Amino acid sequence: MNDHIEEPYLLTPGPLTTSRATKAAMLRDWGSWDDDFNQVTADIRTQLLAMAEAPSDEYACVPMQGSGTFAVESALACATDPSGKVLVLMNGAYGKRAAQLLATMGRAYTTLDKGDYRPPQADEVAARLQQDPAITSVFLVHCETSSGILNPLDAIADVVRTQGKTLIVDAMSSFGGIPISLAQTPIDVLVSSANKCIEGVPGFGFVIIRQALLEAGKGRAHSLSLDLHAQWEYMERTGQWRFTPPTHTVVAFQAALAQHREEGGVPGRCARYTRNRDALVKGMRALGFSTLLEDEWLSPIITTFLSPTDPAFEFHSFYAALKARGFLIYPGKLTEVESFRIGCIGQLGTTVIAQLLNAIQDVLADMDVSLIADLSSPSGSA
Amino acid sequence: MNDHIEEPYLLTPGPLTTSRATKAAMLRDWGSWDDDFNQVTADIRTQLLAMAEAPSDEYACVPMQGSGTFAVESALACATDPSGKVLVLMNGAYGKRAAQLLATMGRAYTTLDKGDYRPPQADEVAARLQQDPAITSVFLVHCETSSGILNPLDAIADVVRTQGKTLIVDAMSSFGGIPISLAQTPIDVLVSSANKCIEGVPGFGFVIIRQALLEAGKGRAHSLSLDLHAQWEYMERTGQWRFTPPTHTVVAFQAALAQHREEGGVPGRCARYTRNRDALVKGMRALGFSTLLEDEWLSPIITTFLSPTDPAFEFHSFYAALKARGFLIYPGKLTEVESFRIGCIGQLGTTVIAQLLNAIQDVLADMDVSLIADLSSPSGSA
Ligand SMILES: Cc1ncc(COP(=O)(O)O)c(C=O)c1O
Ligand SMILES: Cc1ncc(COP(=O)(O)O)c(C=O)c1O
Repeated sequence: MNDHIEEPYLLTPGPLTTSRATKAAMLRDWGSWDDDFNQVTADIRTQLLAMAEAPSDEYACVPMQGSGTFAVESALACATDPSGKVLVLMNGAYGKRAAQLLATMGRAYTTLDKGDYRPPQADEVAARLQQDPAITSVFLVHCETSSGILNPLDAIADVVRTQGKTLIVDAMSSFGGIPISLAQTPIDVLVSSANKCIEGVPGFGFVIIRQALLEAGKGRAHSLSLDLHAQWEYMERTGQWRFTPPTHTVVAFQAALAQHREEGGVPGRCARYTRNRDALVKGMRALGFSTLLEDEWLSPIITTFLSPTDPAFEFHSFYAALKARGFLIYPGKLTEVESFRIGCIGQLGTTVIAQLLNAIQDVLADMDVSLIADLSSPSGSA
Repeated sequence: MNDHIEEPYLLTPGPLTTSRATKAAMLRDWGSWDDDFNQVTADIRTQLLAMAEAPSDEYACVPMQGSGTFAVESALACATDPSGKVLVLMNGAYGKRAAQLLATMGRAYTTLDKGDYRPPQADEVAARLQQDPAITSVFLVHCETSSGILNPLDAIADVVRTQGKTLIVDAMSSFGGIPISLAQTPIDVLVSSANKCIEGVPGFGFVIIRQALLEAGKGRAHSLSLDLHAQWEYMERTGQWRFTPPTHTVVAFQAALAQHREEGGVPGRCARYTRNRDALVKGMRALGFSTLLEDEWLSPIITTFLSPTDPAFEFHSFYAALKARGFLIYPGKLTEVESFRIGCIGQLGTTVIAQLLNAIQDVLADMDVSLIADLSSPSGSA
């Protein structure tokens, strides 16, 4: 019915290129209340707690239907005290979104806004917490996907713990791809989703949260659908999701988890993503591109490159030409500078990155973008 | 990895047995912001409006991530005036859920509660609207899946229109399987989901709603994720879903829509479901079962049967024995009488119903349930 080019690689922070085995798990229908499916749900909850190194007597994993934002909203509604105040650490789109979520649900918050991509620092957080004792919890985005920056989670977690506040981490784009240990880093709530580093397909998110916070969250939710406590309570009691789960997405996720283990778990996956990122950054720099961030802040998830200043460069044509060659890249999300992003996650390795780099080189030559250092065109040297 | 019996038939109101073609559409990954995917989204929105016979200059179709309840919540939040009052017509679990949704989001409502399965009647609704002029909208479940009753939509819609109120219909389990024409029946808001009569897989719902109500709903939402106006506005502007869509579920739904058309659209599908229902009810009655409802109220979606009073009958064993034979049926959802439910929707026809009836007969014989009229066991005649 559709007339598509061959399936392109998704060089993006999700939905991403998933394995055939993951997608093939969706070729079966499941009764959403049946015991066979309940076992799948129980299994993924257990595996996610283990992946987070979260003591299972202190934490619970609660999946939530919808996109990642739905899971963040349900976590904020449950884990923040309606009479408290949240400090939202912002350096990009997803920190901003958390503030918007709180505003919409009428919870008090204040922000530490670092602009497009500068990292919030632990001492700044400590100072804000000291200045404003009304703050009861802190929200941090681990990998801020809008720039690709990896924020200093451990240092900030220490400060938040020392001051006795609750730490809520949006680890949407990092969990499963970058080591996070709840046994070692004091995180109270961690949110992620199916279609990021665990390489499932989109359709649900999940919250790893202290059981004490779940219990305190009873009756707090502003929304019936997004009531995390009620989802947890129902799931514990019946083994089922409270409302119809995305069954096919859930079984695909179980298949993705098996592949994650086979790859060596988080360290194995992190190693592959890091190789992808290193090959990408090296290759792009060789072509004359600059990364937005210094090396110290680059995540192995996604990298932002500054757009060439040559007026011959135009993102939409660049995107379309790369798509025609089988690669989907990602538009920028910065407010201050022109940029685009290339993801390193999903079912792809350095071979695909090498092919992508060749394609980029070709496309730039075709577009006659000449500010690039060493394009192979005769006049291309800067 | 899993050790399952062969895939059973799902004789349930969804998630249901879907076609191979629908599931196979999920064997590809899509960029959620890419134009190819945006075209899929635009196409399903257009097709759903056409299926509802909704004039496209008056109505819009807005999909929403999550289960059906999420779509109902987003519709109620957008389409009901926070300073108004909703009359919730209740005769089962899903009418009750609407009241709970409104309670949680702090909207005023009143109920007309008919218990487990008696239908709300148009004259009762008219009387309530006259008694209580503060009521601004009426919520009705079309097929109340908890009993299977088909509520008198047309008559109630006329009354609501005559009195100038807004009508919100939960057509979750009926839309696509039972003719509904917004050109003929004055419905302001209709909610359904991917995994019911259109026979997609679960992961999103959709709302067909008057554009004037969408516009009035701006800023009303209690939840960022479930803000229907914002989803609509963003989709109209960019062609994209506001937050990550369940891409695989969406393309599976497009495949399911193509099959729905090939079957002759709503009339074709309704005819098959009706044949299934007629074969089921006839066969079950021949075995000695009684339906909860009189024929006049039976929907072609799902039928509730009273549990045999013979103490030898035990639902869990009955369920497990049928499952071992390849059929998943559905537990009852009534508060007053013991019952179970069998669905007629999904990729199955009267051959499967005949096989199911044979299996039920066998299982009852194995269980030694003797209150059944004409089991083939020698002593079985009642
Ligand atoms: C860090 C982060 N937070 C939140 C989200 C929102 O997720 P979704 O688009 O699934 O709602 C994303 C999506 O990329 C993300 O990267
Ligand atoms: C009439 C009706 N309304 C609402 C729902 C809720 O849908 P979900 O379970 O997808 O949230 C259902 C589910 O079966 C239903 O049949």
